[in-house]
Amino acid sequence: MNIEQFVAQCEGTWRSMRSSHSLAFQQFEEVLSEIRIQKVNSEDPEVIQLLKSTTSHNSMPVSPFKMEWQAESDWEPNVKSEVTSGSCLLIPIPKTHEKGVILRSRGYAEAEKAVSNYEFLSDGTFLLITKYGQSIAEERIWFVSKHIRCRSSVLRTSEGSGVLQTSFASEVRRLKN
Amino acid sequence: MNIEQFVAQCEGTWRSMRSSHSLAFQQFEEVLSEIRIQKVNSEDPEVIQLLKSTTSHNSMPVSPFKMEWQAESDWEPNVKSEVTSGSCLLIPIPKTHEKGVILRSRGYAEAEKAVSNYEFLSDGTFLLITKYGQSIAEERIWFVSKHIRCRSSVLRTSEGSGVLQTSFASEVRRLKN
Repeated sequence: MNIEQFVAQCEGTWRSMRSSHSLAFQQFEEVLSEIRIQKVNSEDPEVIQLLKSTTSHNSMPVSPFKMEWQAESDWEPNVKSEVTSGSCLLIPIPKTHEKGVILRSRGYAEAEKAVSNYEFLSDGTFLLITKYGQSIAEERIWFVSKHIRCRSSVLRTSEGSGVLQTSFASEVRRLKN
Repeated sequence: MNIEQFVAQCEGTWRSMRSSHSLAFQQFEEVLSEIRIQKVNSEDPEVIQLLKSTTSHNSMPVSPFKMEWQAESDWEPNVKSEVTSGSCLLIPIPKTHEKGVILRSRGYAEAEKAVSNYEFLSDGTFLLITKYGQSIAEERIWFVSKHIRCRSSVLRTSEGSGVLQTSFASEVRRLKN
């Protein structure tokens, strides 16, 4: 598996069921959302802008893509759902076949720009590690079939090994748009 | 990572937060439970019994262990929780350093005896695949720190690639008993 194949596999619209676990408070959170992943042209002004604004990277970007999400949170099943949405531009820059960095216009744990390190495990699982000011996020994405993927994340404090939150999403591709 | 080190790392009492996703119905389930994992002597009558009752395996068993769980389901937050519990004997039989089989006195997806195949991925993630009559379960266990582990499962139909259910557990070691 390389990053180009991985992005191609991720392209499309996904119906996501996501559970978060707050370990300190033993609280569960459940979110249903729709995620849309689309490749973006390397010449796109947003891509050029993000590449310029980040510390120089020698290698060439591969398969930049945009992720958009629209979440329907159901913390309170009987209360009207709160809808949140957002989008993020991601630019992979491979170092080797299995490893590299990804520039993000917006982070996962903190809403600021971020640089992540990625690698593929022996079974093709995609591993993404992002260091923020106060925290480190480790995300894993693996496909259980062509149209179903799993995504887990662990958020920990950057000092020490305190784990703040974990999450897991089961995502099914929307075959009709 | 080998199976002996892995079982040693798992030994103890764990406080588990587990979320299940039923993909067809888009239903979430949340379970809080306590899991206790203890090594069992290879000469234990239960171990000998399970080894005898299963098709012959040439290699020697390593680190047999018992898993006990007590779950407090909270499907309905305002209704008195239902407590379920159970236990299972597991006997690993390595084939190589990273791969082997595990005999189980009770399966995960179906409550009958089962034989699972296990292997370790390049980052030490433990991967366990169990074929039942009607379904195949894939479980992954990885440690995010010495005292925190994550566990995911995907249950699919044995015919075709239909995914029935996924689950994810965040487990924190109980340091005091």
